[in-house]
Amino acid sequence: MSSQPEPNKADTAANAPTQFVDASGTRFAYRRFGNPIGTPIVLLQHFMGNLDNYDPAITDALGQGREVILTDNAAVGLSTGVAPETVAGMARDAASLIDALGLERVDLFGFSMGGYVAQQIVLDRPELVRRLVLVGTGPRGGDGMAQLAPDTAPLFGKAYDPQDLMWLPIFFSPSEASQAAGRRFLERIRARTEDRDVPVSETTVAAHSAAAREWGAAAPGSFDYLKGITHPTLVVNGSEDIVVPTINSYILQQNLPNAELILFPDSNHGSHFQFTQSFNGYLSEFVDR
Amino acid sequence: MSSQPEPNKADTAANAPTQFVDASGTRFAYRRFGNPIGTPIVLLQHFMGNLDNYDPAITDALGQGREVILTDNAAVGLSTGVAPETVAGMARDAASLIDALGLERVDLFGFSMGGYVAQQIVLDRPELVRRLVLVGTGPRGGDGMAQLAPDTAPLFGKAYDPQDLMWLPIFFSPSEASQAAGRRFLERIRARTEDRDVPVSETTVAAHSAAAREWGAAAPGSFDYLKGITHPTLVVNGSEDIVVPTINSYILQQNLPNAELILFPDSNHGSHFQFTQSFNGYLSEFVDR
Repeated sequence: MSSQPEPNKADTAANAPTQFVDASGTRFAYRRFGNPIGTPIVLLQHFMGNLDNYDPAITDALGQGREVILTDNAAVGLSTGVAPETVAGMARDAASLIDALGLERVDLFGFSMGGYVAQQIVLDRPELVRRLVLVGTGPRGGDGMAQLAPDTAPLFGKAYDPQDLMWLPIFFSPSEASQAAGRRFLERIRARTEDRDVPVSETTVAAHSAAAREWGAAAPGSFDYLKGITHPTLVVNGSEDIVVPTINSYILQQNLPNAELILFPDSNHGSHFQFTQSFNGYLSEFVDR
Repeated sequence: MSSQPEPNKADTAANAPTQFVDASGTRFAYRRFGNPIGTPIVLLQHFMGNLDNYDPAITDALGQGREVILTDNAAVGLSTGVAPETVAGMARDAASLIDALGLERVDLFGFSMGGYVAQQIVLDRPELVRRLVLVGTGPRGGDGMAQLAPDTAPLFGKAYDPQDLMWLPIFFSPSEASQAAGRRFLERIRARTEDRDVPVSETTVAAHSAAAREWGAAAPGSFDYLKGITHPTLVVNGSEDIVVPTINSYILQQNLPNAELILFPDSNHGSHFQFTQSFNGYLSEFVDR
């Protein structure tokens, strides 16, 4: 009898062990669980998020129909390496992690900055990707993306006890219903008590801030690359995203040749953490299609 | 033994008899079928459409979970009366039809001009409506709604044989996939062979054109009324609607306090006739919620 069970398909977000794989000189941290059928889905995390910030209510639902791979990019959480100061660099690192896992074709789910990285991976390696899910994100040089809005920027630097309370004003709208959904979200991401990830370092935060500014800098023709991404894409956001303004989700849908857009009411950057049941239904329909 | 079965819940879009009800001096034509449970859904038709232009693939799917009431507004198809030259008048007529059927609370599904009418009914009679579905439509004074685009306007006046071919360029995108979906849509609305409706008269077409222009005329603060519609609302459109420009669906979602938006790829004014399976899934989830 072993007291330490092997990873297997019965794992969930709560108990899937943190694993590591070496690629391009970096030791990447990831968690892998779910039903080993069909096309695996790789999740790319938001600014300041680590493996513990993926919502178990979403990833466990996904895991019923496919393998789910939660990732820390280079120099995020338990991953080693250096955080690139460009989305292009982050995309190279994330792709090298996917390659190191021996995955030849994946669905990509990028939230916020993870959505920038997902777009760049599809551009660089179109054959690696089957379907794309872009949540709370925007195109290169999008509207109001060069820097955070004056009211939003301080929310990322503020100290809380516990610190994860920072996500309530960033991910959820001021309404009572949205804030209540936010508190339930926090309970879900706190539920895992063993083998947790570690906070993102200040050095990485600074590098990723530079990467986001470079991606968001307005430039003529900056949406043109979207016409070349023919992958089926699901774009999702809240009605009033204070981090990546909602209009950018509309711009993505209007410029991507094969994208569907869903916008939820009374919601902010983390609408999928709020309308999780609806979101899971849409997402499951999309990746199973 | 009766050779003429009574209308009952087994009726479908194909065989539900055309019925009539008198209200405010008008004899309204309608068809009613589906499962008599829950909140009935009333459908409000687009410009130049009659009872035969509702998509059976959508209305039969709706009918599995509720009663479906297809309507002809005043002076449309087999309805008598005079066609109002304002959306306000069309909304009063449609509400009087709903009242005459003894329905105290309904879901409203308005497509295109039917969406203008649905918004106006909710404004006039908020207690009459539970949920609102707005497809291929826009707000008062929306973007590019005062008149049809120069390339679009002639599409409504052109002669075809058969005439229903007019809907291919109006409802579907130029892509092969969309046009093929359009031909399947035409087969569906042609499938009913008995007891069909009659074409919309030129007088009614002229009156409804005036109503659409009046609704669409840009005016400062013309979206303000949307803040007062707190009903759960599902807004749906195609990626490039040439009749009511797609941005207006975004404007609806951004100004309605409780609206969800879905935009489909590679599609035009009739995206729900193209992505019918996905649309039915979203719609069923929304009205069953």
